[in-house]
Amino acid sequence: MDLRELLKEIEKYEGKEVKLQGWIRNHRKQKEFGFIDFSDGTCFNHLQIVYDDKLSSFEEIQKYKNGSSITVIGTIVKSEGSGQSHELKLKEIILEGDCPDDYPMQPKQHSREFLREQAYLRPRTNLFQAVFRIRSVTAMAIHTYFQDRDYIYFHSPILTGSDCEGAGEMFRVTNQDLDEIAKMRENDQEKELFGRTVSLTVSGQLEGETFAQAFKKIYTFGPTFRAENSNTKFHANEFWMIEPEIAFCDLEQVMDIEEDCLKYIINYVLEHCKPEMEFLDKYVEKGLIEKLKKAVNSKYVRITHEEVIKILKEAEEKGIKWEFKPEYGEDIAKEHEKYITEYFNGPVFIKDWPKDIKSFYMKQNEDGKTVAAVDLELPGIGELIGGSQREDDYDKLVNRTKELNMDMKDYWWYLNLRKYGSTVHSGFGIGFERLLLYLTSVDNIRDVIPYPRTPGNCEF
Amino acid sequence: MDLRELLKEIEKYEGKEVKLQGWIRNHRKQKEFGFIDFSDGTCFNHLQIVYDDKLSSFEEIQKYKNGSSITVIGTIVKSEGSGQSHELKLKEIILEGDCPDDYPMQPKQHSREFLREQAYLRPRTNLFQAVFRIRSVTAMAIHTYFQDRDYIYFHSPILTGSDCEGAGEMFRVTNQDLDEIAKMRENDQEKELFGRTVSLTVSGQLEGETFAQAFKKIYTFGPTFRAENSNTKFHANEFWMIEPEIAFCDLEQVMDIEEDCLKYIINYVLEHCKPEMEFLDKYVEKGLIEKLKKAVNSKYVRITHEEVIKILKEAEEKGIKWEFKPEYGEDIAKEHEKYITEYFNGPVFIKDWPKDIKSFYMKQNEDGKTVAAVDLELPGIGELIGGSQREDDYDKLVNRTKELNMDMKDYWWYLNLRKYGSTVHSGFGIGFERLLLYLTSVDNIRDVIPYPRTPGNCEF
Repeated sequence: MDLRELLKEIEKYEGKEVKLQGWIRNHRKQKEFGFIDFSDGTCFNHLQIVYDDKLSSFEEIQKYKNGSSITVIGTIVKSEGSGQSHELKLKEIILEGDCPDDYPMQPKQHSREFLREQAYLRPRTNLFQAVFRIRSVTAMAIHTYFQDRDYIYFHSPILTGSDCEGAGEMFRVTNQDLDEIAKMRENDQEKELFGRTVSLTVSGQLEGETFAQAFKKIYTFGPTFRAENSNTKFHANEFWMIEPEIAFCDLEQVMDIEEDCLKYIINYVLEHCKPEMEFLDKYVEKGLIEKLKKAVNSKYVRITHEEVIKILKEAEEKGIKWEFKPEYGEDIAKEHEKYITEYFNGPVFIKDWPKDIKSFYMKQNEDGKTVAAVDLELPGIGELIGGSQREDDYDKLVNRTKELNMDMKDYWWYLNLRKYGSTVHSGFGIGFERLLLYLTSVDNIRDVIPYPRTPGNCEF
Repeated sequence: MDLRELLKEIEKYEGKEVKLQGWIRNHRKQKEFGFIDFSDGTCFNHLQIVYDDKLSSFEEIQKYKNGSSITVIGTIVKSEGSGQSHELKLKEIILEGDCPDDYPMQPKQHSREFLREQAYLRPRTNLFQAVFRIRSVTAMAIHTYFQDRDYIYFHSPILTGSDCEGAGEMFRVTNQDLDEIAKMRENDQEKELFGRTVSLTVSGQLEGETFAQAFKKIYTFGPTFRAENSNTKFHANEFWMIEPEIAFCDLEQVMDIEEDCLKYIINYVLEHCKPEMEFLDKYVEKGLIEKLKKAVNSKYVRITHEEVIKILKEAEEKGIKWEFKPEYGEDIAKEHEKYITEYFNGPVFIKDWPKDIKSFYMKQNEDGKTVAAVDLELPGIGELIGGSQREDDYDKLVNRTKELNMDMKDYWWYLNLRKYGSTVHSGFGIGFERLLLYLTSVDNIRDVIPYPRTPGNCEF
């Protein structure tokens, strides 16, 4: 049986014999007794296994090392120790797989850097047992939220022939040997499998919109890629995004959905990952659970970019020194995001951004200066969700792409959506890893991705 | 409100006024009446909207074209027509987005080939409303199955530095301009973002095993890539795979899981996609639902590869002419798969395959000739799931990679799993699109992927 099943109702098993399979996380040996800290990975909590020298194999068992895999049979009894209510009194043990003394995951504190080098073993530690279970459960929270509300899960393509947003930040893909290409003077398109140069997607939004115009409500959840050479705690070259798109939905309505969705996810994780969250609250950030509960119980402020700048300027008058001077018509800095969430003491939607610092596809407001974009700023983490109402007017969209000198030949289909039964529609994007940083309070994106890809790092 | 919500309990809304937003799928005009076939994409079924010339906007409404998006307000009434129990008697209509006469999705039969060229519009047709909702629901069935059983959803990396299985069939990825590379005489690794040549993954299994050795039960569900130039109905260059890995699980147990999992998925889809499945049963393959129900209710046969060859040879003696002669120690052909599932009149697990035609990581059986691999063969589609017990003995695995002249320097971590608390463990892979072909009876992989990537095709 799984340890999770056992621990769920351990009283029921009192006095009963059970069989478990898992690993030795720690092994304390005394002269007449031994204690094995046992985990099978199905739940965060461990089970204490007790054995004594009445077992004929006592001396043999005492040789079993940390990291070894074992099968155990024994009786569940009330524990006399203080760390646990029950323990397993060993009757029989089989060593399934030995583990040498040089096993890197000894039961002591390891640095996060060391653990990244041992990325294939780190999920066996408490921290990563918590983080990667939360990652899995958060993914399920997202699927459950959208599927319960009749959204269609849309697999946006990863290989793409076009690059609209992130010029120069895309990975190029080829089926040819790169050395072969190097030998050619010019890249021969005909040798390419797709007959053209293709790249890895930076966003599934544009394709997602096509499905929203058919199914009304869709969401993507898949990997996206950026080729940028950014060595920060928040950037990875491969990351997962959730991108919902909703037809017949304006900016105010999409804020409703974002807020509802985020609160749902937080509640789901708090409910399904109790021991993991308690561990993180204790060892990673004190007050984490309270912070998350507060985010669930607060009503998110909605304010325009212009009003934000006004508040930031007033703060300057009151004596606050900004590293970056806040200006109407310009982007806001990390320090501003921080100030605003503290000013309102909670999450803040900032909407109606200057059009020149936002994307071509965003709905142009009537003032001619702003677009119906909205960023959700959270205390402690800054921007978590970016969304907008999409431009649904064919002529306005085409004009905007001309102003920006964009080559739209690969996007005829995207523009045509505005011709064939166009709708008021909106969507947003959540960086899955950024959401996990928020939920876990872990501070480096490398520690919430099983095998992170960052500049210089593509191992495992 | 959404149409799905309305249609779920339409009797409750009888005599009540509702407001809906969606698209005109068809518009039949008569002198004093008009009928709009209305869909908002949230469910397979449509709603009939009726209006008459008592409306002051009657003449205006009659101009509304197929494909246009509309907001309608009206009363739900019992229908006098035969096609539906209820309809909406129109009170007010707003044209949200017009649609020109050259709209490609007119309400008539289009060829599948034509619809592929219009891939961004085809989800608006009945067939693709059914297929892509089933795709979404099937994904949810998979997540629900594994999460309910405490599997960890593991995001295997897409970018990878190694190519163990599919030499020559990987896409190469670079952050450099391919033309720039062409100008260089040799591929300069230092210019690469990761400091090495990287590729797109063909499978998440090997990394998945590392997490199974920490969490006991995991599954991947993500995109995988093959650079092969295969123009068939069953091959795409980008496709999604589900790859569960389970520690403390042998070949017989993994067959139990595969069978249970497939039956669960089928039941889930039959339950959650009734109108879609009825549509496919009527228009794509008569008897589809019955075929699926039979697969749920049958017990899958388990038989060795050797026994299969024996049956095939006996068939030859009885006069059956094989295009490919069945031989002990060799692979079996499509015609053999077909014969075997017909012979047993249901799904068949074929296990214990000749080791030379299977992968290096499969558990070597004691006979020295076979490995503990298993393929699940289904009537009508052939192989759907491929699985195996994994080699858990360090020396045997290393010897096998030497026999096969494999360069394992990028796989030190994979080998080490056999050193640090190794376990009997197994896993399997389901091609998501092949599963969808089976569930829908659609016959071309291009028609179950939103934007398929096949040789020469990377549009949208």
